[in-house]
Parts: sequence; structure tokens; C-alpha cells
Amino acid sequence: MRDVAIVGVGMIKFGRFPEKELSELGAQACLLALKDAGMTMKDIETLVSGNLLESNATVGQRIMKEIGQTGIPVLNVANACATGSTAFREAYMAVASGAYDIALAVGSEQMGKMGLLGTGGGRGRISPEGIVGSGLMPAVFGQAGVEHMNKYGTTAEQFAKVAVKNHKHSVHNPYAQYQKDMSLEEVINARMIAWPNTLYMCCPTGDGAAAAILTTMEKAKQYTTTPIKVGASVLTSDPWTERDLTMMDINTLTRNAAKEAYETAGIGPDDLDVIELHDCFATAELLHYENLGLCAEGEAGRMIDEGETTIGGRIPVAPSGGLLSKGHPLGATGVANICEIVWHLRGEAGDRQVEGAKVGLAHVIGLGSACTIQILQR
Amino acid sequence: MRDVAIVGVGMIKFGRFPEKELSELGAQACLLALKDAGMTMKDIETLVSGNLLESNATVGQRIMKEIGQTGIPVLNVANACATGSTAFREAYMAVASGAYDIALAVGSEQMGKMGLLGTGGGRGRISPEGIVGSGLMPAVFGQAGVEHMNKYGTTAEQFAKVAVKNHKHSVHNPYAQYQKDMSLEEVINARMIAWPNTLYMCCPTGDGAAAAILTTMEKAKQYTTTPIKVGASVLTSDPWTERDLTMMDINTLTRNAAKEAYETAGIGPDDLDVIELHDCFATAELLHYENLGLCAEGEAGRMIDEGETTIGGRIPVAPSGGLLSKGHPLGATGVANICEIVWHLRGEAGDRQVEGAKVGLAHVIGLGSACTIQILQR
Repeated sequence: MRDVAIVGVGMIKFGRFPEKELSELGAQACLLALKDAGMTMKDIETLVSGNLLESNATVGQRIMKEIGQTGIPVLNVANACATGSTAFREAYMAVASGAYDIALAVGSEQMGKMGLLGTGGGRGRISPEGIVGSGLMPAVFGQAGVEHMNKYGTTAEQFAKVAVKNHKHSVHNPYAQYQKDMSLEEVINARMIAWPNTLYMCCPTGDGAAAAILTTMEKAKQYTTTPIKVGASVLTSDPWTERDLTMMDINTLTRNAAKEAYETAGIGPDDLDVIELHDCFATAELLHYENLGLCAEGEAGRMIDEGETTIGGRIPVAPSGGLLSKGHPLGATGVANICEIVWHLRGEAGDRQVEGAKVGLAHVIGLGSACTIQILQR
Repeated sequence: MRDVAIVGVGMIKFGRFPEKELSELGAQACLLALKDAGMTMKDIETLVSGNLLESNATVGQRIMKEIGQTGIPVLNVANACATGSTAFREAYMAVASGAYDIALAVGSEQMGKMGLLGTGGGRGRISPEGIVGSGLMPAVFGQAGVEHMNKYGTTAEQFAKVAVKNHKHSVHNPYAQYQKDMSLEEVINARMIAWPNTLYMCCPTGDGAAAAILTTMEKAKQYTTTPIKVGASVLTSDPWTERDLTMMDINTLTRNAAKEAYETAGIGPDDLDVIELHDCFATAELLHYENLGLCAEGEAGRMIDEGETTIGGRIPVAPSGGLLSKGHPLGATGVANICEIVWHLRGEAGDRQVEGAKVGLAHVIGLGSACTIQILQR
């Protein structure tokens, strides 16, 4: 397998764009990534599209039609919330394998028009106003938090601090769906969704798109002075058989993926400078501190108390504002996380820049089950 | 890229199974392929699932849960009617690239429960009874036939003969949804769907699943004495920009893919012994004779008149009964075509065996747009 680098990224501000076609959103992100890489669509040898809600409707080809069709192989992938990051991984594999020299991964989603998630399995429920309390996903992630509270004495306030941190970070991210600073009181006193997560501790639904262009490390120098190496691009599924898929063990899933990613990249958690992880709910973020090995078991609450994961802290997590503020348009999320890490490693993250970041990690889990971890290196 | 071989295939009889879960259908096909290869699920290093109608519902993971989850990477792909063959191609790429030594591709679909195809784009319409006349797809493929009639004087009777041939072949295929011999009169006098295609010249909707296991040519010898080499596994999209995606040029799409496939495999159409192609409508099959280079331009009508594509003829096409009789459960079709070719190359196709077949081709197109061609070699 060849060394692969990211040479172009682009995303649109997440939000609600009911007046636009999904393919327009995806095409905008692709054009931004192409511009970033100094390429045109004719340079792209294969396209991998990640979209969940319209995954049966050749979204990749529709996006390419917006930009200019070329006849190249187009792959449409879906993998629950890990859809975008799975698309990135397939584009990575396409280049690493030697099959193609330049691949474009695009993740897109338009949730505003859709009322239901998971038509096949009937899993989860999303309303136009956001994820609602009666849905399964808030329950799964709320309960995961409760288990942590029972086991380690983690408090509801500590989980709430995750949301405070991420909303604070989002203020400096022009791509975030919400850019609103919130006090601990505001977060704690918001409407309860699924204990201990209040409304502001749940990610919003929305529309969005993000894209990344990959090539070989060797070719990358033609396009940029700051190629970002893909040190690892890992995909795993739930190894457990005794659980229902929707009640999968999100902890084991992430731990297995992290172990493989660290081994592949030849680094450990102490080497990381910046992280975007799957904070679909505030509870999830704290659990993943331990799952990713950022701290010892049961220490996640202390980490957030001491500000270790705030920008300026020991290991900043979700400088973008995370899913909680940036938004979580399903198929777009995985690629957007990668865009954010790339900007930090290039030193282009503006007022939210994690200074001197050299190694970053992007993590997504999908109920259903899938976990992806990308380790990116300057 | 490494040489890759198919060492196990399996499919269930296509039909209507409303009482079963989709994941059961997929799992049955996988278990048959595992048995055929002499493997267990623990031997599989990655799984690629092709399913169109439930593509947003992690079908691959649900299938793996039926068999026994292992934590391996699971990729869910969709690519219109080329969904199953795209899954096969991704499994092929996974092994050819050196990333994995053993990959399982499974295509599955349950159409009986679904009324609509293409929720995103609103393209095509499928009723529980089959593809109906008011749908877009019958119109597209009917019109493609009309163009051929105008250009070359091809007759409605010649198109009808395709259906007669394929229904005749299907009688000997225990996996076919319909196994019913039909006279030319029966085909011609059936209800008109979209001129010149009558009801029996249109593929039925249905449920089904098929699976294939791939490994390196080197490793293949451990599992079988008759490894089937993947000489080419090509995916292309429509290069045209001036057409609507649903009205794509199915001829150019197939011709471009065929050119690439023949070059990759280092063979020409004269080297082929057996073909499964995308005969979603009888008109399509004749057009693809020319698109695949089986005859000169405008000669397709003569080919069917002279019985060249019947079993026993110069180059048998659709010995399985084709989509017209075997059925077309969208995501399953591409892998099922490959199963059929493998059985012929191994000499295991029973009473429909194409004697002495050494080289086969499997072709699928998807409106939307995607075209796959696999060239398989004994």
C-alpha cells in the first residue's frame, strides 16, 4: 500500500437549505476542495460519495453531473453515521492500492426534507426540529452516560461541560450550524432529552456537505506545500453478537478501531495534538476520551473539569464545535471532521487554531454498526 | 494489483419471500458461498454488501449478525441496478490491492415490501406486480429499441425472440424466479408495456440474494481446484453531460466499460464463451450485442434470428434465463450474474451448461449512472 496524502479539502457551512438540491450542496463542497487542491474535475480519477438518507439514488453521479461528468468510476457508500468517513476511507484505499492516483471523497446530507432515519430497520427517529426524546439514539447515548456515572461517579455537570466547551469553540468556526456561546446554567437548564443529556447536549439535524481530495504522498508535492499524510484509515464493525445492533457496545467498537489505528500509524494517544470525535451527544464525548486512550479509565470527568480538551489545553477535542454545534448532517459529518483536522494541521483554522498541531485524529461511530478512525499527520 | 480469483459462490432461488427478513436472504447466500469455498465466516477479512432499497440501513452488518459478527470492516454500497456488481468490484479491489486476502461480496434485495424505487430522485416506478408501463424505465428501454429499429430495421419480432430464448434457458435454472418456456406468439401477444416490449419482455421485480468469495490467485489453490480468475472488474459512469441522468446513453456507457474490460483482461469479444448481460428488457439485450462487440453494428437482429446466442450457439447469452426470467432483485443481480458465469466456467451449470466454457463476461448497467463489466476466466 502506498503512502497517501490529502491535498484539498472543502466544506459548506452546515445549516438548513431546503431550497437547494442535495447535489448542489455536494457539488459546492467538491468545487471548494478542487480549488483548494488547484485541480479541476478532469484531474479526478474516481469519486466516492457518502450519503445516508438518499443512498439508493446515485448521489455521487448527481453531484458529478453538477460539476461536469467525466465517465470515471463512481462509488456510493452508506454506513450509518460513519457514512462520510467510510467514503473517505474507500477513496484512501483507491489511492493506497495503486488503482488510482487521485480520488475525491464527498459526504453530503439533506435532513430537512426527511422525517425518518433508517427506513429499513426503523431505527432512530429524527424530527424536523432535531433529534427528539422519544428516539432510540438519545436513549442509547443517554444510557451510556448513566452507566459511566454509576461506574465512576461521573456527574451530569461534567457531561454538561462538554457541551459548554464545544459551543464555546463553535463561536470561531464559520462552518458551524450554531455559533453560540452558552453558560453551564443554560446547558443544564435546557429541556431534558434523555438523562443526562439536555437539548444543548444533543447534536442538531441539518444539511451539509464536505469533500477531500487524496493522492499519493509523492504526487502531493505537485499540488501543495503542506500535504497531510493519512497515517491510518480504519473501519471496524461491532464484534459482539449478543447485543442488538442498535444497542451495540460503542465503547468496544471505538477501542478496537483506536487500537488498530494507533498500530497502523505507529503512534499513541500521547502523540495527538487535535481531535474531532463523534460527540453526537455530550455523554459520548466523555466516554470516547477513555475509548481513545486520552486518559485512564474513569478519568474523563476529571479531564473536562481541568479543561484539558479545550483549545489551549493538553489535547483539544472538537475545536470545530463538534457535532454538538457544527451539526451532524449524517453523510457529511465524517468528511467534515477530516476537513477540520486538515485545517489545524496546516495552521489554517483561524481563531480556533490549535497552535502547532502536527498529528490529528478524526473519529466517527455509526449505530448499526461501524467505526472509523483516521489519523492525519503534517 | 494482485491477481484475484473467485473461490466460492452461492445464491438463493429468486422469488418473493415477504415472510423473510432481508438479512436472512443475504445470510443464506453467504452461507452457501462459504460452504462452496470450504470456509467459515471467521475466514472472511472484509465484507462488501450491495443493497439498493435499504441501502441506508447497514444491510451488510445485519447480514453478518445473522451469520456471526466478527468485527471486520463492512462496506455498504449502492449503485442503482449495478449495486451488486459494484459490491463485487469493491471486494475485488480489496483483495487486488493487497489490503485483504479474503473478501466476501453479497448482493441482496427484497422488492416485494417496497413500492417505490429511487426515493431521492423519484426515478422509475415499480409496482408489486412488476415494472409497470407508466414507469420511466420501460420507456427508456423501449425507446432505445425503437431507435435501433429506425436505424437498422430491427423488428419487434427479433426483440421478442430474445425473451423466447431467455425464457427457454430458464427452464433448466433452478435459481430462476420464472422457469417457463414461452412461444414467440405468447411473448408477442402479451400485454404491451412500452413498445416494442410486452410484459414477457420485461424483467420481473422480486427478492433474492447472491454471494461470492474472492481471494488471491495464489491462495485460491488452498480452497478449490477450479479457481476462477477475475480478468477484469470495471466500473464506469456516464460521460455525457447533455443528457438527463435517467436518459443516459446506455450504449456509450456499455461500450466504454467493454473497451476498458477487454483491454484489462487482454482479450476480445471473440474470446468469450458465455455471457450474462443486463437484459432488464428484451430490447436492451440486442443493443448490448453490439455494445459488447459480439457482432457488427446493426447485426444484432440477425444474431438472434440465427440462434447465435442460444445455448449451443456461437456465443450463448443469458443461459441463466437472464434478468427476464431469473428475475432482477436489484442489489442481488450483479452478484447472481457472476455466480452463473462461475458455474459455467467450472462446468457445474447442469442442464443449461455451456460446454467447454473457459472465458465469461458479466455485465450490468444502472440508470443513474453506472456500468460494470467483469471478465472471468477458468
